[in-house]
Amino acid sequence: MRICFVGDSFVNGVGDPSCLGWTGRICVDAYQYKDEITYYNLGIRRETSADILKRWLAEVSCRLSPEYDSRLVFSFGVNDTTIERGKTRVSLLDSLNNTRQILTVALSRFPVLMIGPPPIADVEQNQRIGELSQQMRLICERVNIPYLDVFIPLKSSWVWMSEVENYDGAHPRLAGYAEWANLVKSWWAWQAWLK
Amino acid sequence: MRICFVGDSFVNGVGDPSCLGWTGRICVDAYQYKDEITYYNLGIRRETSADILKRWLAEVSCRLSPEYDSRLVFSFGVNDTTIERGKTRVSLLDSLNNTRQILTVALSRFPVLMIGPPPIADVEQNQRIGELSQQMRLICERVNIPYLDVFIPLKSSWVWMSEVENYDGAHPRLAGYAEWANLVKSWWAWQAWLK
Repeated sequence: MRICFVGDSFVNGVGDPSCLGWTGRICVDAYQYKDEITYYNLGIRRETSADILKRWLAEVSCRLSPEYDSRLVFSFGVNDTTIERGKTRVSLLDSLNNTRQILTVALSRFPVLMIGPPPIADVEQNQRIGELSQQMRLICERVNIPYLDVFIPLKSSWVWMSEVENYDGAHPRLAGYAEWANLVKSWWAWQAWLK
Repeated sequence: MRICFVGDSFVNGVGDPSCLGWTGRICVDAYQYKDEITYYNLGIRRETSADILKRWLAEVSCRLSPEYDSRLVFSFGVNDTTIERGKTRVSLLDSLNNTRQILTVALSRFPVLMIGPPPIADVEQNQRIGELSQQMRLICERVNIPYLDVFIPLKSSWVWMSEVENYDGAHPRLAGYAEWANLVKSWWAWQAWLK
């Protein structure tokens, strides 16, 4: 099975000294169920949904093909909600339009999962992230893509919130990424891929 | 420090159940010397030097920037030497031209290292890989990019050669990738980046 994980710095695993992040951890775990996993990490720091919309298809097209068992996992959103020059980098409406466009095209090619944005160490921005996560769920329901909200469980995770706070205000370290990975590992939609 | 590793399935780490490959292993190790490593893995299965020539710059340009401490590591070549329909997928001359073009443009932007192609479990193809590796060294010397030959040491590594033979004829598993990682970790040019 070949999987592209497309998204931002959280998909990349920024801050994790084990260089796996949540994406690598779930792929290591998946080796228990599958003979081989090809793990393509396409997370890029600072990228918003608008940046991902521009490049995801070109990057995925060289890596996946209907010839192989190919899958796509998306996760992004936090960078959209960052304030720069008095407004968010991407408006909520544009975030949702970008998400809808990405997911619709993706689903016409390969099986797709979507995982929402996590909380960071900023109370106001977390309100915007929480709202975005809820709206993303609605889009996914409409296009019939399984959606995992990690905002709510990670916000109540002491491990996640304290690592984020003590590191750079946005990214956790090893244990925080392990928490995120555990949420995905126990998600029915991810488990269904491994059967 | 942000590093893009650009290349083929060996850069991706295909076959490694720890999902790190040699690239992830050297980045984990580098965390001992640097506060943060951003690890971008741009290895794609089956890609030849001609495929990499087409896409590397677009993919690297979204990930690296002169604003940050950005670095590039290339490694490819085995797929060029595979026979399909009676001839190699890429001729030796074209492999060298592609390599020269990639490296010259890369070096005009960021510090660059090049690591050669490894041996596989095919005696005849290994002759072509060994020749390509030697020629790549000459190109790198000419453009002043440090080059690491892994063909010679891995060919005499029982761990590498037996894992490759027992898996799919091209890729090792965990221990083989660890051997490759150790070659890079003890290479002066890589060590110089970590000082």
